[in-house]
Order: sequence, then C-alpha cells, then structure tokens
Amino acid sequence: MSSAHEYAKAHSGRFLEDLKHLIRIPSVSTQPKHAADVRRAADWLEDRMQKIGFETVEQIDMPGGRHPLVFGTWSGAGADAPTVLIYCHYDVQPAVVEDGWHTSPFEPTEKDGILYGRGATDSKINVMTQLSAIESLLASPEKSPVNIKLILEGEEESGGETINAFVAQHADRLAADVSVISDGPIVNPDQPSMVVGLRGIVALEMHVQGPVRDLHSGHFGGNVHNPIQALTEILAQLHDENGTVTVPGFYDDVPPIDPAEREAIAAANPFYDKNWEQTAAAPAVWGEAGYTIQEKAGLRPTLEINGIWGGYAGHGVKTVLPSKAGCKITCRLVPDQEPQKIFNLIQAEIERLTPPTVTVDLTMQDMGSTALRLPYDSKAVKTANIAYENNWGVPTVMEVAGGSVPISSTFANVTEEVVMMGYAHKGGQAHGPNENIYLSMFDKGIGTAIDFLRLYGQD
Amino acid sequence: MSSAHEYAKAHSGRFLEDLKHLIRIPSVSTQPKHAADVRRAADWLEDRMQKIGFETVEQIDMPGGRHPLVFGTWSGAGADAPTVLIYCHYDVQPAVVEDGWHTSPFEPTEKDGILYGRGATDSKINVMTQLSAIESLLASPEKSPVNIKLILEGEEESGGETINAFVAQHADRLAADVSVISDGPIVNPDQPSMVVGLRGIVALEMHVQGPVRDLHSGHFGGNVHNPIQALTEILAQLHDENGTVTVPGFYDDVPPIDPAEREAIAAANPFYDKNWEQTAAAPAVWGEAGYTIQEKAGLRPTLEINGIWGGYAGHGVKTVLPSKAGCKITCRLVPDQEPQKIFNLIQAEIERLTPPTVTVDLTMQDMGSTALRLPYDSKAVKTANIAYENNWGVPTVMEVAGGSVPISSTFANVTEEVVMMGYAHKGGQAHGPNENIYLSMFDKGIGTAIDFLRLYGQD
Repeated sequence: MSSAHEYAKAHSGRFLEDLKHLIRIPSVSTQPKHAADVRRAADWLEDRMQKIGFETVEQIDMPGGRHPLVFGTWSGAGADAPTVLIYCHYDVQPAVVEDGWHTSPFEPTEKDGILYGRGATDSKINVMTQLSAIESLLASPEKSPVNIKLILEGEEESGGETINAFVAQHADRLAADVSVISDGPIVNPDQPSMVVGLRGIVALEMHVQGPVRDLHSGHFGGNVHNPIQALTEILAQLHDENGTVTVPGFYDDVPPIDPAEREAIAAANPFYDKNWEQTAAAPAVWGEAGYTIQEKAGLRPTLEINGIWGGYAGHGVKTVLPSKAGCKITCRLVPDQEPQKIFNLIQAEIERLTPPTVTVDLTMQDMGSTALRLPYDSKAVKTANIAYENNWGVPTVMEVAGGSVPISSTFANVTEEVVMMGYAHKGGQAHGPNENIYLSMFDKGIGTAIDFLRLYGQD
Repeated sequence: MSSAHEYAKAHSGRFLEDLKHLIRIPSVSTQPKHAADVRRAADWLEDRMQKIGFETVEQIDMPGGRHPLVFGTWSGAGADAPTVLIYCHYDVQPAVVEDGWHTSPFEPTEKDGILYGRGATDSKINVMTQLSAIESLLASPEKSPVNIKLILEGEEESGGETINAFVAQHADRLAADVSVISDGPIVNPDQPSMVVGLRGIVALEMHVQGPVRDLHSGHFGGNVHNPIQALTEILAQLHDENGTVTVPGFYDDVPPIDPAEREAIAAANPFYDKNWEQTAAAPAVWGEAGYTIQEKAGLRPTLEINGIWGGYAGHGVKTVLPSKAGCKITCRLVPDQEPQKIFNLIQAEIERLTPPTVTVDLTMQDMGSTALRLPYDSKAVKTANIAYENNWGVPTVMEVAGGSVPISSTFANVTEEVVMMGYAHKGGQAHGPNENIYLSMFDKGIGTAIDFLRLYGQD
C-alpha cells in the first residue's frame, strides 16, 4: 500500500464530512434563484483546492456564462511526466421534498451505510473522490507521478455553454495526455464498470395555443379544439406501437449495431436487467424489440416527454377548456445523430401534425450534445481497468450508458485519449428523489482514483 | 310602471353595492380552504333575505354536505295564489391572478360599464337580480301576487350532493307551481334568450403509473414506457379526426337531431357564431361536421380534457422520466345519456387501451347530472318570454345551451313546470379569467325578474 492510500485511510472521516458539506450547498444550476448557491459551492471548492496543494487555482467566468468554472493545476511531476486532465461537475438538478424524498434533499443523511442527498450520486461523489485522491497523493512523500489539471463545471445540468466556450477558446490551457471524465455511475456498488459509449442529447419545449383565453367547457366544448387534446394527439403520433420514433429521418444517421460492440458490453447486461427490476420496477419492460435493456438505453436514440401541463390540476373539478398546453421533450442521441438536425426533423414533423385548429410553438433549449464511443484498448481505458480491479477486487465490465455527458465529446476533441471514470452507482437515483451513494464506494473510489494517477505515470 | 319597478330604480346603486359585496366573498366550493368563505356568503345572504321580508329563512346543512343551502319562503299572496320556487347558486369556481386576470378576481372592478370579478357572471348576478327583484316587490304597496320560495345552493360548482339530498328528502317543502332556475347566460347583453335545453355532465379523473419512482431519462429512456407518453397515447385515441368521440357505445342513447328543434333554436345561431369569434377566437372552428356552433355545444355530447399533468413543468430542462401522469376529464351529455353508464363505457375503453407497460386508475368524480329539454309552449316559458321582452325591448330567442345546470333536472322532477331565467351573458367568461357582467344588464334583469313574478301571478 502506497503512502497515499495510507493517508486516504487515515483521513476518510474528514473526506466524508467534506462530501456532506458540498451536498449541503444547493448548487442547482437550472434555477436562477440558486445562482448564489452555485457560486458558494465554487468558492468552497476553490478554497479546498488551494489548501490541498494545487499550484494555481482560479474561478473562471466566461462572457455570457451563468456559473463559474473552477480550474486548478499542479505540475510538480515535471515536464517529462504525463499530464492528466480531470473533469467533474459540481452543479445539481432541482429537488424538492414533494417529489417523494424521505429526507430533506440538501441535508445529507446516512442510513444503513447509504448517504442520501441531491448530488450524492450526480455528481458530488465524483468531485470529492477526485479531490480526496489528489490530496492523498500530494500529501504523501512520493507525490503524484503525473501532472494534474482539474476542471470543475457548474452548468452541466443546464447546458454547459461556459465550459464549451472555455475549451473552444483556451484549449492550450487544457493540454494533457488524457482526459478523465469523472461523472456517471458504475453498474453496481460491488461491480466496477467503465462507460465506453454515451448518448447525446437535444432538448425541446413545445407550446400549443387554442382559443385566446380559458373557456367554459359547456359553452365551447365540441366547437373549440381543446389544446390539451391537440397536444396529446400530436405527441401520440411521435412513437409507433413498438416504441420506435416515427419522426421521418430520425434514424437516418443511426448505424446498425456492431456485433463486436454487442459482445464487448454483454457482461454488463445482467446489471442493467437487475437495476431495471429494482429501480424502475414498471409493470413491464418497454421499447423496441430485439434489444437488451442496456442496448435500448445505450445504443438506441429516444424521444422522451419530461413534463406536460395544461388546464386545471388542483383539487376537485374545474370545467375549463384551457387556452394552452405544453410539454418538455428531450431526445437521447447515438452516433452520428446531430442535435440541430434532429430538432429540425422533429419541428418539421410537428408542423405537419399540427391541425389548423391550434398553433404550436417549438423551441430548442440550450442543452445539446453529440454521442460518444471510446476505443476499448487505449492506454487510459486499460489503466482505468487495473485501477478499478485493484480496489474492487473484480474485473471491470464495459458498458454503453444511456445518459449524456456532453463534455465527453468536447474533451475528445482536446486530448488524444478520453476515459470515463465514475464513482456513483446506477441505483443512485440521479435526477430523482432519494438520490444516494453507498459509503463503501467512496473509499474504494478514492483508492481507484489514486491508482489511476499512479499507474498512468508509471508507463 | 309598477311601484316595484320604481323601488328598483330608486335603489339600483345599493343593489350594485350588494352584488359587489357578494363577489368580494371568495365562496369557492371546490377548494376546502375556502369552506369558511362559503359559509360567510351564506350568512350574509340569510341576513339579506331576513331584512327584505322573507317570512322564514334558514341555513340548511345536510348530513355529509360541505356547504349550506339558504332557504327562504314568503306566503303573503295567500293559499289561492301560485307559488314560484326560485333557484340560484352562490358558490364560484377557483380563480387566481396567474390564470390571466387583469384585476384581482375577488375585488369587483368597474371599467367601461363592465363589472369584473369571479362570480360576476356565474352566478352572483343571478342571486342578486332575484334578491333585488323580490325586495322591490315586497317593499311596494301591491306586494307580490305569487308566493315565493327561494333556495340558494353553495355546491353547484362542486357536485351538488347537498341540494339533491334535500330535494329527495324534503320535496314537500319545495312544493310550487313552477321552478325558476336562475343560472347561466343570455346570448348577448342586448338580446335576451331562454335556454330550453341543457347538457348533463359526468366528471372523471385518470392516473397513469409507470415506474415506481421518477427515473433518469438517460438510464431508462427507451426501456421504460414514459407514463406521460402512455397517457397521451390513450387520450389521443378517444376522438377520431372529425372530433367524434370513439368510445364504443358513447352515442348509443343520443337521439338524431329533431328538425323542429333545429328550427326553434335557429334564431340563436348568429349569437353563438359571433360569441365564438369574440370569446374563443381559436384559429379555426373544430368539431363534428354538419352541426352549427350552437348545435355542437347544445345538442352533441363531448369528452373534454380539463387538465393534464406529469413530470417537470418548471424553469429549464430536467431530464426526468416521471413515475406518473394524470388528467381530469368531463363529458357533457345530451338526452338520454346516463352519467354512470357513460363513465362505465369510458372506463371499459380506457382499460382496453391501456398497454401492459403502465397501470391506470380511473375514478368518477362527484359531479354528475343528466341533460334537460323543456317544452317551448308552457305557461312559464311564455311568461318569461314576455317579461324579458318588456325589459329588453326585443323578442327572446330560444337556445340549447352547452353548459350543465344539474339542478334543472332535479327540479324538473319536483314541480310541474321549469323555466330557465339567467341574467348573465355568454361573453362573461364564466369559469375563466376576467369574468364579467355588463352593468346595464343588472337593471334590466331586475325588471325582468319583477315582471315574471307579477305576470305569473296574473293568470
């Protein structure tokens, strides 16, 4: 055991307190009312990075950006040593108790070895795993054998324009041999896994307008097209009965499934199946025939309605024929679908489906990214495999994940290698109520992050 | 001009203040938080009725009821004179500024001869028109030539169980020659009209459950049936492209349109057409082919989605795959559709349409009534025609209205004759924002209500 591992063990209690401290800051990037909280999280992280020995640390506010990046560098390994660029995000999704939380979402709560709180899994566990690993290396006599750049994003859940602008304008400052994208979950608390594929995303919002004002459903029911009804009639035509998206051209750029890829990820299938039973537990599996649950999530695109509204949703009966209705949609994309092209196809189809009795307004939201596939045999992926196995005691499985980490594609253009090293878990309820992380994973994760940096520097 | 009319003219300013006073009381019967306000309205009405000379006045709370009836009698015309039973309701629909009000909904506001406020049109104008007319008659030397029973309901907008129970148990106390249902609008502020048909109603609430909890749309999108999507897919199958309801059996009890009825109501068609252009102003008229706007509203049944909800409707993007979604539905019914039978047909069809990937819970709400058709040549309808023409200066038009006044069917079983005498107007935004009444109508309405009682007593 290296001295860095010994340091980590000795300080594990304080590392956990640091994680809880960060969870207590409601750094919700999608809601303007939490802007000061996002800034508070950035301030605290900047301070931590200075204390643990980064040589330069700064908050970066890009023009037009809403939340700061936190960027730190340590070059003590020398000019001949490799440089590792690590990315995490410290912002979170909204959370209110009414969504079904059993605890206060921003008060981290331990129970039976599990820590509950918004951001526990997505993605403050990753931020604090990396910070704790780097602290452990820099505090040990042998230091880190690689130079380190750490960049923390505050807008991952709400568009990511700031980091994209920073990368586009300052790629030189991020120069490194490998990017470690530390976001997302492993398949199981006891089974490390590595994501070699991610879906892209495009977000839409749709508004349907019928009459100019809310109407009495008695006087106008039957002669005015109810905009809620029109909305359901349009939305219901976007999938066929097999769950396939019917928007013309939607699948034009989707490649057929590669048998080699299917084989490479097959070991992860049981974890996807089990997680589905435990976490989704819907009455039945849904979706396109001929694909496993993992393949449906990772290799096929989707069109998902994330929210719908219209008319009266309060207590009792209100006999209103509302003037408008709306919904939020996101599409998960696979290579080589382009967000803007997919938006255009959906817009054209919705225009075609809109009857003359209502008007529809469709807008593309700021979130948009392409999908990613990584080569399985890169130095970074192989090193990560060993680091995980060292600490978990079992071989790592490969998987294609359904989520979107837009930054992965961005960094794939900046460094030669990219590797995804997440320390959350799939049952962690990312974006949902009762988000959580197993405490046992935190220590293993810190050990893995230490080992990746040590082993990547030994080559 | 009778002395009752003179009294009404002399007191018109105070009558208007009384109307405003009643509008200021937010007697929203559908929301438990307003229960005390409904009671406050009942107290104030009881007090007014005592002051203007009713011989008996009481508030009636039926077992299981939520809001009181106010019942008053005056028998000064003697045992040989006819008795007129007048019905109004003093409760209102919910209203919040956010629905699009330009004024505070419970602060009556005059502008350009129009009075804005929740309940102005539906139906506090009717309550105060009748009370003002009765006060004027009882205060005049000749008094009223008919005995009067006035019953005011506080649950019209939320089910009406209390009055139905009272009528079922105490029909003897309501004994009268004619029921005057004073609710609903005339076709235009300058054109009196009389409703000879009303639609019935049945209300449903539907809940769709997919996964057991909200999920990350990246991990589960494509393999879990989104309950919002499932809901839209079910709802979109309840109408065909012509706007006809597709629920099997829905039209089984609907009679073909009677040419004589079509002719009788034709004079009201232009008012329906004009009101549609001014009030609905949707991009195009919708609904079944071969019917006028009035006929679609009055002679054909509907299935209307009054509200829909599910997932995230706040600011920004939230990539959630929600666990549930729901909607509120009301059907307007025509003779001889039965509410319970229609509910059962819809329930069977929704069960048939529900895929195995979600579960659906459908419940019938407490609101339910059958439709009504009145004979055009009854003494009551003829007397009402003269009373309207006396005060408006133009002949009354007959119409079939699309709204539901459940109590009409109830009273049709209690008294030999029923007549609908409303003093609101169709552009009055009943149930919507900026509900309003023309001040000029209030004085004409009081004159009409005086004349109906005088003329009915002269036979």
